[in-house]
Amino acid sequence: MAIEPENEHYILTIGCPDRTGIVAAVAGFLASQDCFIRESSHFGDMETERFFMRTVYLRGQKSPPQESLVAQFSKIATDFQMDWAIYDGHARPKVVILVSRFDHCLNDLLYRYRTGALPMEIAAIVSNHPELTSLAEWHRLPFHHFPVTEETKSEQEAKILGLIEESGAELVILARYMQVLTPEFCAKMPGRIINIHHSFLPGFKGAKPYQQAHARGVKLIGATAHYVTAGLDEGPIIDQAVERVDHSDTTEAFVRVGRDIECLVLARAVRYHLERRVLLHGVRTVVFR
Amino acid sequence: MAIEPENEHYILTIGCPDRTGIVAAVAGFLASQDCFIRESSHFGDMETERFFMRTVYLRGQKSPPQESLVAQFSKIATDFQMDWAIYDGHARPKVVILVSRFDHCLNDLLYRYRTGALPMEIAAIVSNHPELTSLAEWHRLPFHHFPVTEETKSEQEAKILGLIEESGAELVILARYMQVLTPEFCAKMPGRIINIHHSFLPGFKGAKPYQQAHARGVKLIGATAHYVTAGLDEGPIIDQAVERVDHSDTTEAFVRVGRDIECLVLARAVRYHLERRVLLHGVRTVVFR
Amino acid sequence: MAIEPENEHYILTIGCPDRTGIVAAVAGFLASQDCFIRESSHFGDMETERFFMRTVYLRGQKSPPQESLVAQFSKIATDFQMDWAIYDGHARPKVVILVSRFDHCLNDLLYRYRTGALPMEIAAIVSNHPELTSLAEWHRLPFHHFPVTEETKSEQEAKILGLIEESGAELVILARYMQVLTPEFCAKMPGRIINIHHSFLPGFKGAKPYQQAHARGVKLIGATAHYVTAGLDEGPIIDQAVERVDHSDTTEAFVRVGRDIECLVLARAVRYHLERRVLLHGVRTVVFR
Amino acid sequence: MAIEPENEHYILTIGCPDRTGIVAAVAGFLASQDCFIRESSHFGDMETERFFMRTVYLRGQKSPPQESLVAQFSKIATDFQMDWAIYDGHARPKVVILVSRFDHCLNDLLYRYRTGALPMEIAAIVSNHPELTSLAEWHRLPFHHFPVTEETKSEQEAKILGLIEESGAELVILARYMQVLTPEFCAKMPGRIINIHHSFLPGFKGAKPYQQAHARGVKLIGATAHYVTAGLDEGPIIDQAVERVDHSDTTEAFVRVGRDIECLVLARAVRYHLERRVLLHGVRTVVFR
Repeated sequence: MAIEPENEHYILTIGCPDRTGIVAAVAGFLASQDCFIRESSHFGDMETERFFMRTVYLRGQKSPPQESLVAQFSKIATDFQMDWAIYDGHARPKVVILVSRFDHCLNDLLYRYRTGALPMEIAAIVSNHPELTSLAEWHRLPFHHFPVTEETKSEQEAKILGLIEESGAELVILARYMQVLTPEFCAKMPGRIINIHHSFLPGFKGAKPYQQAHARGVKLIGATAHYVTAGLDEGPIIDQAVERVDHSDTTEAFVRVGRDIECLVLARAVRYHLERRVLLHGVRTVVFR
Repeated sequence: MAIEPENEHYILTIGCPDRTGIVAAVAGFLASQDCFIRESSHFGDMETERFFMRTVYLRGQKSPPQESLVAQFSKIATDFQMDWAIYDGHARPKVVILVSRFDHCLNDLLYRYRTGALPMEIAAIVSNHPELTSLAEWHRLPFHHFPVTEETKSEQEAKILGLIEESGAELVILARYMQVLTPEFCAKMPGRIINIHHSFLPGFKGAKPYQQAHARGVKLIGATAHYVTAGLDEGPIIDQAVERVDHSDTTEAFVRVGRDIECLVLARAVRYHLERRVLLHGVRTVVFR
Repeated sequence: MAIEPENEHYILTIGCPDRTGIVAAVAGFLASQDCFIRESSHFGDMETERFFMRTVYLRGQKSPPQESLVAQFSKIATDFQMDWAIYDGHARPKVVILVSRFDHCLNDLLYRYRTGALPMEIAAIVSNHPELTSLAEWHRLPFHHFPVTEETKSEQEAKILGLIEESGAELVILARYMQVLTPEFCAKMPGRIINIHHSFLPGFKGAKPYQQAHARGVKLIGATAHYVTAGLDEGPIIDQAVERVDHSDTTEAFVRVGRDIECLVLARAVRYHLERRVLLHGVRTVVFR
Repeated sequence: MAIEPENEHYILTIGCPDRTGIVAAVAGFLASQDCFIRESSHFGDMETERFFMRTVYLRGQKSPPQESLVAQFSKIATDFQMDWAIYDGHARPKVVILVSRFDHCLNDLLYRYRTGALPMEIAAIVSNHPELTSLAEWHRLPFHHFPVTEETKSEQEAKILGLIEESGAELVILARYMQVLTPEFCAKMPGRIINIHHSFLPGFKGAKPYQQAHARGVKLIGATAHYVTAGLDEGPIIDQAVERVDHSDTTEAFVRVGRDIECLVLARAVRYHLERRVLLHGVRTVVFR
């Protein structure tokens, strides 16, 4: 699944109306540019007749400069009405992490960041509480304490947006950030904000999902990583996981057990995003694992 | 977990207000009757202060006749305000299975019945369609075709209730029975009707859950076995399971993958019930696996 | 994952030395023949430098007759030194099932066969015991009782091979067949015999794996579906699964729990094989799910 | 499962020959001392005829001082030939962690330690490499760099044993410690050293299990937490887990995926041990979850 870091490699993602000849056109073009396909995944949705593709290619000795290759490709893209992008496989996208007081997801993300398991640059950690300053500092990462109330929310979000723009961050990770973002904020970054919700959506939306789950007497609890949209906990799902619980587990035990799933699911979703494995498909996602 | 068939053994189940001395009283009583405890599970819910217990005991050479033992125990039970029952561990409870056209759960239950994995007697198989007659016949089991319309529903349910009473069945299994039972029917058999719902409840209640799940773009699909109450898909959950799906899975694939989970979860819930492992706790269950 | 039955579709599988231009050549060829790619999966092994591909295509209105298309493709195949095959996506491969006394896997396969979940024709069921005659008969399938002893093994295997040749079966399924096949038999059908072993290989090879697992005190038990080779339980693995057990589970409970995993894993492996999703890669497999 | 911290509570663990009256004696004794049983788990192994029990009790207002209660209980214990212990439920056992260079398990243990999820005191972190000094320091924990060669092993182990004795540590955790302990060291601490092995034992013992697993072409990889004995990777298993991999996963991907399972399984095993849920049963364990 994951590709190992090495020579120049690029990731091409495509979404377009499905028809005969797309793969031939793309693969033929890459071959003509002496590019070697190392990974390639396709999906044609028969219902929506939309086609999705992710291809990892290595440049060969006879490949033209990358800019001219990209320019050439844009002609094919136009012919097939593609939404497309080509990413440098070595680039480490910049992210901003929002967090409140619970630090298990942050701690997990930072560990994976520190060991290179998540290929990203952390432009900033923002919290509405000051507690996690020292954790950020130990990782030598900028920490911003932006308190927030209902009255100051738009102002606080403006500060966050300022940080995002300044740093050129392309992804925001809500690592158990307990504030609901305004629709305006969400609308500015479609498909670029990942949240971890501590339930198996669409069950138990909103506040206190573990309490809700406990009251309902479920036998499995879950976590869901999804892109954030204006609809609370309604955005496109990237990944989910569950863990078994039983009658003897208190709400506190649900919280404890759930913590591990939250970390795993969020880290997986972030990795998929960073490796350009996630393509939006309306209210759903295509995830090329 | 499961106990193997052998000498006389009995299953005692208890629910009562929690207080000091319950286990001592029960275990002391059994020891005084020369009964050997082979399995015992307890659970005291700290929130509701209710205590649950399931004990499997073998009678010893000096044990009094079972009836007198039961009579003696009822005094203790009264002292502790117990809801209780003692079951013969060799008895095979009688069940009635309701089914419509989808036969995967029925086929699975019949296989487990035939091989002794589910210790039950099947008093009758009832369907609102005739297709499964031959399957029932091969297993030499009585099959009743009771068609149903909105108008004839109470009449049809009366016929089912007649079968239940006649046969002394203590459990009804809805093995993908696609009719909603009337509140009257449900009220007659609280904690004695098990349904398999093809979603991870509380997500996707009601009709066509796989279609709902597909439209939402979930990454896991599930199945839930629960006791039936008047509230649609709201009854106490006995067991749940999930399986991974992805963007390339059509609704039909969800149905195919889901079928295996439905079978497993329903079979597990029925076995727990038959082995007296499930105790009702309000809208939830205690399941001593 | 699974494709739904419909118009003419074909499955092309390829294994060849990896190099630039393979996908372009294949996809270009298909486009030139007015073929629409509905599914395509690739894998280039960086260690062995071998490339694998599975493509499902639909023929278009301007596609030439399938034979001439195949003839054309063989030129490309030669250029790239491909091991390749094109299968009619509607064909239902013929299989022979071998079984002994335990019938859970057979019962499961027959259910999936009967409901169309496994797209195969069952040419024959062969057993070294007579018990499962009636089960086969209910499904109107030919059942052969071929008893076997150490002395008569080669003779008995000759009868099985006779059945295979006569019927044109291309796959043999060992559905808990408790005899070890001779190396001669195995050598005749490389990659065409699927066995279910009731352990998580490579742990607990050989006889009585559940007893071995119980003695070792494992906390998970498993099942493994693999192609059969002369080395006992050493063949390429197609799929595996596990289930949780604990200290209170006897060997008998291991057997009971394991039965469900065996059924699921074997059915999955058979489906992958029938849908041409499994490609041999030395002692390993590539499985395009 | 887990109990929440609160008033005085104690954990009683028992192993003894099975016979009628054990539960009655223990529960009767506790009731007579005004102790309230909050959790209790039993297991009688029918094969070995050995009985195991773990009971969590709260002291009541009329309970005698704990020492006199323990003294009283020892008489019952003698009658039933019990191996037994009573632990203060609030005590946080002292542990020593051994680690080499890979720090994912250490990082995970420290996070759980810091947030109270693992109720232990870390007396020392010992490594044969210096790299993890700073991580230990951030948690304000003593870090000892004890390099080791084949020649200096017994000397180095003596230093570790010195630390253990000095600090009164009762548990040693091998958090990916890449040295094989000498039989002498193992023999000194039976049931008191927990190792995480990065395979699904008994498959792939010894060095480089992920490479072994990759070469064999398995479809699931696993991790096993076990008590250390003189036999390499042969000690009693406490917990295991697996994760799915496929043909496209390199050995490096196995390592990455496996890391998360290793952390989870080791943390779970340590928690079970600290909460006195694990009882040795020959080469196996009883784990009251």
